[in-house]
Amino acid sequence: MKQNQARPPLRERNRQRVHQRILNAAFELFRTTGYDQTTMDTIAALAEVSRGTLFNYFPTKSMLLIPFLKELYFQRVRPEVLPYLETQPTTLQALRFLFISIYEHIFKFPDMDHAIQALQQEMFHPHPDDADINEGTGFLDNVQAILEYGQRRGEVRTDIALEKLTRYVGVLYVSLIGNMIDMGATNKYTNEVDILLAFIGSAFR
Amino acid sequence: MKQNQARPPLRERNRQRVHQRILNAAFELFRTTGYDQTTMDTIAALAEVSRGTLFNYFPTKSMLLIPFLKELYFQRVRPEVLPYLETQPTTLQALRFLFISIYEHIFKFPDMDHAIQALQQEMFHPHPDDADINEGTGFLDNVQAILEYGQRRGEVRTDIALEKLTRYVGVLYVSLIGNMIDMGATNKYTNEVDILLAFIGSAFR
Repeated sequence: MKQNQARPPLRERNRQRVHQRILNAAFELFRTTGYDQTTMDTIAALAEVSRGTLFNYFPTKSMLLIPFLKELYFQRVRPEVLPYLETQPTTLQALRFLFISIYEHIFKFPDMDHAIQALQQEMFHPHPDDADINEGTGFLDNVQAILEYGQRRGEVRTDIALEKLTRYVGVLYVSLIGNMIDMGATNKYTNEVDILLAFIGSAFR
Repeated sequence: MKQNQARPPLRERNRQRVHQRILNAAFELFRTTGYDQTTMDTIAALAEVSRGTLFNYFPTKSMLLIPFLKELYFQRVRPEVLPYLETQPTTLQALRFLFISIYEHIFKFPDMDHAIQALQQEMFHPHPDDADINEGTGFLDNVQAILEYGQRRGEVRTDIALEKLTRYVGVLYVSLIGNMIDMGATNKYTNEVDILLAFIGSAFR
Protein backbone atom coordinates (compact mmCIF):
# COMPACT_ATOMS: atom_id res chain seq x y z
CA MET A 1 0.00 0.00 0.00
CA LYS A 2 2.82 2.38 0.82
CA GLN A 3 4.08 1.94 -2.72
CA ASN A 4 1.11 3.97 -3.95
CA GLN A 5 2.51 7.14 -2.50
CA ALA A 6 5.71 6.87 -4.49
CA ARG A 7 4.12 5.60 -7.65
CA PRO A 8 0.51 5.90 -8.82
CA PRO A 9 -1.39 2.61 -9.21
CA LEU A 10 -1.24 0.76 -12.53
CA ARG A 11 -4.73 1.87 -13.51
CA GLU A 12 -3.77 5.53 -13.11
CA ARG A 13 -0.48 5.08 -14.96
CA ASN A 14 -2.32 3.50 -17.86
CA ARG A 15 -4.79 6.36 -17.88
CA GLN A 16 -1.96 8.88 -18.06
CA ARG A 17 -0.30 6.97 -20.89
CA VAL A 18 -3.48 6.90 -22.97
CA HIS A 19 -4.05 10.61 -22.22
CA GLN A 20 -0.58 11.48 -23.45
CA ARG A 21 -0.89 9.26 -26.51
CA ILE A 22 -4.09 11.06 -27.51
CA LEU A 23 -2.46 14.46 -27.00
CA ASN A 24 0.57 13.50 -29.09
CA ALA A 25 -1.63 12.23 -31.90
CA ALA A 26 -3.86 15.30 -31.85
CA PHE A 27 -0.93 17.74 -31.77
CA GLU A 28 0.76 16.02 -34.67
CA LEU A 29 -2.43 16.14 -36.75
CA PHE A 30 -3.17 19.76 -35.83
CA ARG A 31 0.33 20.73 -36.93
CA THR A 32 0.37 18.79 -40.17
CA THR A 33 -3.27 18.60 -41.32
CA GLY A 34 -4.61 21.65 -39.50
CA TYR A 35 -7.22 21.85 -36.76
CA ASP A 36 -10.30 22.05 -38.96
CA GLN A 37 -9.29 19.15 -41.18
CA THR A 38 -8.48 16.88 -38.25
CA THR A 39 -11.37 14.63 -37.20
CA MET A 40 -11.87 12.75 -33.96
CA ASP A 41 -11.67 9.56 -36.02
CA THR A 42 -8.21 10.34 -37.36
CA ILE A 43 -7.04 11.26 -33.85
CA ALA A 44 -8.35 7.96 -32.47
CA ALA A 45 -6.68 6.02 -35.29
CA LEU A 46 -3.29 7.67 -34.85
CA ALA A 47 -3.44 7.32 -31.06
CA GLU A 48 -4.51 3.68 -31.48
CA VAL A 49 -7.51 4.00 -29.19
CA SER A 50 -11.16 3.32 -29.91
CA ARG A 51 -13.48 6.17 -30.74
CA GLY A 52 -15.30 5.49 -27.45
CA THR A 53 -12.08 5.78 -25.45
CA LEU A 54 -11.17 9.04 -27.16
CA PHE A 55 -14.56 10.60 -26.40
CA ASN A 56 -14.23 9.35 -22.86
CA TYR A 57 -11.00 11.33 -22.42
CA PHE A 58 -11.92 14.32 -24.60
CA PRO A 59 -15.64 14.75 -25.31
CA THR A 60 -14.97 17.42 -27.96
CA LYS A 61 -12.17 18.25 -30.35
CA SER A 62 -11.99 21.75 -28.92
CA MET A 63 -10.96 20.29 -25.57
CA LEU A 64 -7.77 19.21 -27.28
CA LEU A 65 -7.11 22.72 -28.48
CA ILE A 66 -6.26 24.22 -25.09
CA PRO A 67 -3.52 21.67 -24.36
CA PHE A 68 -2.31 22.28 -27.91
CA LEU A 69 -2.20 26.06 -27.44
CA LYS A 70 -0.32 25.60 -24.22
CA GLU A 71 2.11 23.32 -26.02
CA LEU A 72 2.64 25.96 -28.73
CA TYR A 73 3.37 28.53 -26.02
CA PHE A 74 5.65 26.21 -24.12
CA GLN A 75 7.59 24.99 -27.17
CA ARG A 76 7.81 28.18 -29.20
CA VAL A 77 7.15 31.32 -27.17
CA ARG A 78 8.63 30.48 -23.78
CA PRO A 79 12.15 29.61 -24.95
CA GLU A 80 12.50 32.97 -26.71
CA VAL A 81 11.99 35.21 -23.69
CA LEU A 82 15.11 34.79 -21.57
CA PRO A 83 17.52 34.92 -24.54
CA TYR A 84 15.82 38.13 -25.65
CA LEU A 85 16.40 39.69 -22.23
CA GLU A 86 20.13 39.10 -22.73
CA THR A 87 20.06 41.60 -25.59
CA GLN A 88 19.30 44.26 -22.92
CA PRO A 89 16.00 45.62 -24.23
CA THR A 90 13.92 48.05 -22.17
CA THR A 91 11.17 46.47 -20.08
CA LEU A 92 8.53 47.66 -22.52
CA GLN A 93 10.44 46.29 -25.48
CA ALA A 94 10.63 42.95 -23.68
CA LEU A 95 6.89 42.87 -22.97
CA ARG A 96 6.22 43.84 -26.56
CA PHE A 97 8.49 41.05 -27.73
CA LEU A 98 6.56 38.55 -25.60
CA PHE A 99 3.15 39.73 -26.78
CA ILE A 100 4.15 39.77 -30.44
CA SER A 101 5.75 36.33 -30.11
CA ILE A 102 2.44 35.00 -28.76
CA TYR A 103 0.72 36.48 -31.78
CA GLU A 104 3.15 35.00 -34.26
CA HIS A 105 3.24 31.52 -32.80
CA ILE A 106 -0.27 31.05 -31.45
CA PHE A 107 -2.73 33.57 -32.83
CA LYS A 108 -1.80 32.95 -36.42
CA PHE A 109 -2.59 29.30 -36.00
CA PRO A 110 -5.92 28.71 -37.74
CA ASP A 111 -9.13 28.55 -35.72
CA MET A 112 -7.59 29.75 -32.46
CA ASP A 113 -10.39 32.07 -31.41
CA HIS A 114 -12.54 29.59 -29.55
CA ALA A 115 -9.60 28.06 -27.75
CA ILE A 116 -8.21 31.41 -26.66
CA GLN A 117 -11.56 32.34 -25.19
CA ALA A 118 -11.51 29.17 -23.14
CA LEU A 119 -7.95 29.92 -21.98
CA GLN A 120 -9.04 33.38 -21.02
CA GLN A 121 -11.74 31.92 -18.82
CA GLU A 122 -9.16 29.76 -17.07
CA MET A 123 -6.98 32.80 -16.47
CA PHE A 124 -9.60 34.47 -14.35
CA HIS A 125 -10.63 31.37 -12.47
CA PRO A 126 -7.46 29.74 -11.34
CA HIS A 127 -8.16 26.99 -8.85
CA PRO A 128 -5.44 24.87 -7.35
CA ASP A 129 -6.67 21.65 -8.92
CA ASP A 130 -7.51 22.99 -12.35
CA ALA A 131 -4.95 23.83 -14.91
CA ASP A 132 -4.53 27.59 -15.06
CA ILE A 133 -3.07 29.67 -17.84
CA ASN A 134 0.39 29.58 -16.27
CA GLU A 135 0.44 25.84 -15.82
CA GLY A 136 1.90 24.12 -18.80
CA THR A 137 2.80 27.44 -20.41
CA GLY A 138 4.81 29.57 -18.04
CA PHE A 139 3.12 32.73 -19.38
CA LEU A 140 2.93 34.47 -16.02
CA ASP A 141 6.43 33.26 -15.20
CA ASN A 142 7.60 34.99 -18.36
CA VAL A 143 5.79 38.21 -17.47
CA GLN A 144 7.27 38.07 -13.99
CA ALA A 145 10.79 37.46 -15.31
CA ILE A 146 10.46 40.54 -17.51
CA LEU A 147 9.13 42.70 -14.68
CA GLU A 148 11.86 41.53 -12.33
CA TYR A 149 14.41 42.37 -15.01
CA GLY A 150 12.74 45.78 -15.29
CA GLN A 151 12.97 46.33 -11.55
CA ARG A 152 16.69 45.56 -11.66
CA ARG A 153 17.06 48.08 -14.45
CA GLY A 154 15.22 50.66 -12.38
CA GLU A 155 12.41 50.90 -14.94
CA VAL A 156 9.68 49.21 -12.94
CA ARG A 157 8.43 50.51 -9.60
CA THR A 158 9.53 48.39 -6.68
CA ASP A 159 6.98 49.68 -4.17
CA ILE A 160 4.38 47.24 -5.53
CA ALA A 161 5.05 43.53 -5.01
CA LEU A 162 6.33 41.77 -8.14
CA GLU A 163 3.55 39.20 -7.86
CA LYS A 164 0.88 41.94 -7.98
CA LEU A 165 2.51 43.75 -10.88
CA THR A 166 2.65 40.44 -12.73
CA ARG A 167 -1.01 39.88 -12.11
CA TYR A 168 -1.99 43.38 -13.26
CA VAL A 169 -0.03 43.08 -16.49
CA GLY A 170 -1.22 39.51 -17.13
CA VAL A 171 -4.85 40.41 -16.58
CA LEU A 172 -4.65 43.47 -18.83
CA TYR A 173 -3.04 41.49 -21.61
CA VAL A 174 -5.39 38.52 -21.43
CA SER A 175 -8.45 40.74 -21.29
CA LEU A 176 -7.17 42.65 -24.31
CA ILE A 177 -6.97 39.40 -26.25
CA GLY A 178 -10.46 38.37 -25.17
CA ASN A 179 -11.82 41.75 -26.17
CA MET A 180 -10.16 41.64 -29.59
CA ILE A 181 -11.58 38.19 -30.22
CA ASP A 182 -15.06 39.26 -29.11
CA MET A 183 -14.84 42.22 -31.47
CA GLY A 184 -13.32 40.19 -34.30
CA ALA A 185 -10.47 42.68 -34.30
CA THR A 186 -7.38 40.52 -33.98
CA ASN A 187 -6.05 42.24 -37.11
CA LYS A 188 -5.48 45.27 -34.87
CA TYR A 189 -3.35 43.23 -32.50
CA THR A 190 -0.11 45.21 -32.77
CA ASN A 191 -1.89 48.54 -32.45
CA GLU A 192 -3.88 47.42 -29.40
CA VAL A 193 -0.75 46.01 -27.79
CA ASP A 194 1.10 49.31 -28.27
CA ILE A 195 -1.71 51.31 -26.66
CA LEU A 196 -1.81 48.92 -23.71
CA LEU A 197 1.97 49.13 -23.36
CA ALA A 198 1.73 52.94 -23.25
CA PHE A 199 -0.68 52.60 -20.33
CA ILE A 200 1.38 49.94 -18.55
CA GLY A 201 4.64 51.74 -19.22
CA SER A 202 3.60 54.91 -17.48
CA ALA A 203 2.37 52.87 -14.51
CA PHE A 204 5.83 51.38 -14.03
CA ARG A 205 7.66 54.57 -13.27
CA MET B 1 -48.76 41.13 -37.02
CA LYS B 2 -47.25 44.56 -37.26
CA GLN B 3 -48.40 45.24 -33.73
CA ASN B 4 -45.77 42.79 -32.49
CA GLN B 5 -42.98 45.16 -33.38
CA ALA B 6 -44.27 47.92 -31.17
CA ARG B 7 -45.36 45.68 -28.33
CA PRO B 8 -44.24 42.18 -27.44
CA PRO B 9 -46.91 39.48 -27.69
CA LEU B 10 -49.05 38.73 -24.64
CA ARG B 11 -47.18 35.52 -23.87
CA GLU B 12 -43.88 37.43 -23.67
CA ARG B 13 -45.39 40.22 -21.57
CA ASN B 14 -46.73 37.67 -19.12
CA ARG B 15 -43.31 36.04 -18.95
CA GLN B 16 -41.70 39.36 -18.14
CA ARG B 17 -44.27 40.10 -15.45
CA VAL B 18 -43.70 36.76 -13.71
CA HIS B 19 -39.93 37.26 -14.02
CA GLN B 20 -40.15 40.64 -12.35
CA ARG B 21 -42.51 39.38 -9.63
CA ILE B 22 -40.02 36.65 -8.74
CA LEU B 23 -37.14 39.15 -8.63
CA ASN B 24 -39.10 41.54 -6.41
CA ALA B 25 -40.00 38.74 -4.00
CA ALA B 26 -36.44 37.40 -3.88
CA PHE B 27 -34.90 40.86 -3.34
CA GLU B 28 -37.29 41.63 -0.52
CA LEU B 29 -36.51 38.34 1.20
CA PHE B 30 -32.74 38.68 0.70
CA ARG B 31 -32.88 42.15 2.27
CA THR B 32 -35.06 41.26 5.22
CA THR B 33 -34.36 37.60 5.96
CA GLY B 34 -30.89 37.34 4.42
CA TYR B 35 -29.74 35.24 1.49
CA ASP B 36 -28.93 32.06 3.38
CA GLN B 37 -32.19 31.99 5.29
CA THR B 38 -34.30 32.56 2.18
CA THR B 39 -35.55 29.35 0.57
CA MET B 40 -36.90 28.81 -2.93
CA ASP B 41 -40.22 27.91 -1.29
CA THR B 42 -40.55 31.24 0.48
CA ILE B 43 -39.63 33.06 -2.74
CA ALA B 44 -42.30 31.13 -4.67
CA ALA B 45 -44.87 31.85 -1.98
CA LEU B 46 -44.18 35.60 -1.85
CA ALA B 47 -44.10 35.84 -5.68
CA GLU B 48 -47.34 33.84 -5.82
CA VAL B 49 -45.99 31.34 -8.33
CA SER B 50 -45.72 27.56 -8.08
CA ARG B 51 -42.44 25.96 -7.12
CA GLY B 52 -42.29 24.50 -10.64
CA THR B 53 -42.67 27.92 -12.25
CA LEU B 54 -39.97 29.41 -10.05
CA PHE B 55 -37.48 26.66 -10.94
CA ASN B 56 -38.41 27.11 -14.57
CA TYR B 57 -37.36 30.77 -14.42
CA PHE B 58 -34.45 30.38 -11.97
CA PRO B 59 -33.10 26.84 -11.59
CA THR B 60 -31.00 27.81 -8.57
CA LYS B 61 -31.21 30.40 -5.82
CA SER B 62 -27.77 31.67 -6.75
CA MET B 63 -29.11 32.74 -10.14
CA LEU B 64 -31.20 35.28 -8.26
CA LEU B 65 -28.13 36.67 -6.56
CA ILE B 66 -26.61 38.29 -9.63
CA PRO B 67 -29.71 40.36 -10.39
CA PHE B 68 -29.79 41.23 -6.69
CA LEU B 69 -26.17 42.37 -6.64
CA LYS B 70 -26.81 44.47 -9.70
CA GLU B 71 -29.82 45.97 -7.99
CA LEU B 72 -27.71 46.81 -4.92
CA TYR B 73 -25.19 48.52 -7.18
CA PHE B 74 -27.84 50.36 -9.12
CA GLN B 75 -29.80 51.51 -6.09
CA ARG B 76 -27.00 52.27 -3.66
CA VAL B 77 -23.62 52.72 -5.33
CA ARG B 78 -24.50 54.34 -8.63
CA PRO B 79 -26.39 57.34 -7.25
CA GLU B 80 -23.43 58.32 -5.07
CA VAL B 81 -20.86 58.78 -7.81
CA LEU B 82 -21.89 61.94 -9.65
CA PRO B 83 -22.70 63.92 -6.47
CA TYR B 84 -19.28 62.96 -5.14
CA LEU B 85 -17.60 64.35 -8.26
CA GLU B 86 -19.21 67.70 -7.47
CA THR B 87 -17.05 67.92 -4.36
CA GLN B 88 -14.06 68.18 -6.75
CA PRO B 89 -11.98 65.20 -5.60
CA THR B 90 -8.92 64.09 -7.52
CA THR B 91 -9.50 61.30 -10.06
CA LEU B 92 -7.88 58.77 -7.77
CA GLN B 93 -9.99 59.89 -4.83
CA ALA B 94 -13.07 59.44 -6.99
CA LEU B 95 -12.08 55.92 -8.07
CA ARG B 96 -11.31 55.08 -4.47
CA PHE B 97 -14.71 56.40 -3.42
CA LEU B 98 -16.39 54.18 -6.04
CA PHE B 99 -14.46 51.07 -5.05
CA ILE B 100 -15.05 51.59 -1.33
CA SER B 101 -18.72 52.27 -1.93
CA ILE B 102 -18.99 48.93 -3.75
CA TYR B 103 -17.40 47.29 -0.75
CA GLU B 104 -19.70 48.93 1.75
CA HIS B 105 -22.92 48.29 -0.12
CA ILE B 106 -22.32 44.98 -1.85
CA PHE B 107 -19.37 43.09 -0.41
CA LYS B 108 -20.56 43.38 3.12
CA PHE B 109 -23.80 41.73 2.19
CA PRO B 110 -23.62 38.15 3.50
CA ASP B 111 -22.72 35.30 1.16
CA MET B 112 -21.71 37.48 -1.75
CA ASP B 113 -18.62 35.53 -2.78
CA HIS B 114 -20.21 33.08 -5.15
CA ALA B 115 -22.30 35.74 -6.81
CA ILE B 116 -19.36 38.04 -7.34
CA GLN B 117 -17.42 35.26 -9.00
CA ALA B 118 -20.29 34.77 -11.42
CA LEU B 119 -20.40 38.51 -12.10
CA GLN B 120 -16.70 38.47 -12.75
CA GLN B 121 -17.19 35.79 -15.35
CA GLU B 122 -19.77 37.96 -17.09
CA MET B 123 -17.40 40.87 -17.09
CA PHE B 124 -14.87 39.06 -19.21
CA HIS B 125 -17.36 37.54 -21.57
CA PRO B 126 -19.61 40.33 -22.61
CA HIS B 127 -21.80 39.30 -25.49
CA PRO B 128 -24.39 41.60 -26.99
CA ASP B 129 -27.31 39.41 -26.00
CA ASP B 130 -26.16 38.45 -22.53
CA ALA B 131 -26.31 40.76 -19.62
CA ASP B 132 -22.86 42.13 -18.92
CA ILE B 133 -21.56 43.70 -15.75
CA ASN B 134 -22.43 47.18 -16.96
CA GLU B 135 -25.99 46.31 -17.88
CA GLY B 136 -28.34 46.92 -15.00
CA THR B 137 -25.55 48.42 -12.92
CA GLY B 138 -23.80 51.17 -14.80
CA PHE B 139 -20.45 50.20 -13.25
CA LEU B 140 -18.41 50.88 -16.36
CA ASP B 141 -20.43 54.04 -16.98
CA ASN B 142 -19.38 55.19 -13.52
CA VAL B 143 -15.73 54.39 -14.17
CA GLN B 144 -15.94 56.20 -17.48
CA ALA B 145 -17.58 59.26 -15.92
CA ILE B 146 -14.74 59.46 -13.40
CA LEU B 147 -12.04 59.08 -16.06
CA GLU B 148 -13.68 61.70 -18.28
CA TYR B 149 -13.79 64.01 -15.27
CA GLY B 150 -10.10 63.25 -14.73
CA GLN B 151 -9.28 64.08 -18.33
CA ARG B 152 -11.03 67.43 -17.95
CA ARG B 153 -8.96 68.09 -14.85
CA GLY B 154 -5.79 67.22 -16.77
CA GLU B 155 -5.07 64.28 -14.46
CA VAL B 156 -5.77 61.46 -16.92
CA ARG B 157 -3.88 61.01 -20.17
CA THR B 158 -5.93 61.88 -23.22
CA ASP B 159 -3.77 60.07 -25.78
CA ILE B 160 -5.56 56.80 -24.99
CA ALA B 161 -9.25 56.56 -25.88
CA LEU B 162 -11.57 56.96 -22.91
CA GLU B 163 -13.27 53.67 -23.77
CA LYS B 164 -9.95 51.80 -23.58
CA LEU B 165 -8.92 53.45 -20.30
CA THR B 166 -12.33 52.52 -18.89
CA ARG B 167 -11.83 48.93 -19.92
CA TYR B 168 -8.32 48.75 -18.45
CA VAL B 169 -9.43 50.14 -15.11
CA GLY B 170 -12.60 48.03 -15.04
CA VAL B 171 -10.72 44.84 -15.82
CA LEU B 172 -8.05 45.52 -13.20
CA TYR B 173 -10.64 46.22 -10.54
CA VAL B 174 -12.86 43.22 -11.31
CA SER B 175 -9.89 40.88 -11.46
CA LEU B 176 -8.69 42.23 -8.13
CA ILE B 177 -12.04 41.34 -6.59
CA GLY B 178 -11.99 37.87 -8.13
CA ASN B 179 -8.50 37.30 -6.85
CA MET B 180 -9.36 38.43 -3.32
CA ILE B 181 -12.35 36.09 -3.27
CA ASP B 182 -10.29 33.17 -4.58
CA MET B 183 -7.74 33.85 -1.85
CA GLY B 184 -10.37 34.42 0.84
CA ALA B 185 -8.72 37.80 1.43
CA THR B 186 -11.60 40.25 1.15
CA ASN B 187 -10.59 41.58 4.57
CA LYS B 188 -7.63 43.17 2.79
CA TYR B 189 -9.93 45.00 0.40
CA THR B 190 -8.90 48.58 1.24
CA ASN B 191 -5.22 47.74 1.15
CA GLU B 192 -5.47 45.93 -2.18
CA VAL B 193 -7.49 48.79 -3.66
CA ASP B 194 -4.88 51.33 -2.60
CA ILE B 195 -2.07 49.34 -4.22
CA LEU B 196 -4.06 49.01 -7.43
CA LEU B 197 -4.81 52.74 -7.38
CA ALA B 198 -1.09 53.48 -7.06
CA PHE B 199 -0.50 51.45 -10.20
CA ILE B 200 -3.42 52.98 -12.09
CA GLY B 201 -2.62 56.47 -10.89
CA SER B 202 0.86 56.51 -12.32
CA ALA B 203 -0.49 55.20 -15.63
CA PHE B 204 -2.77 58.21 -15.95
CA ARG B 205 -0.13 60.85 -16.11
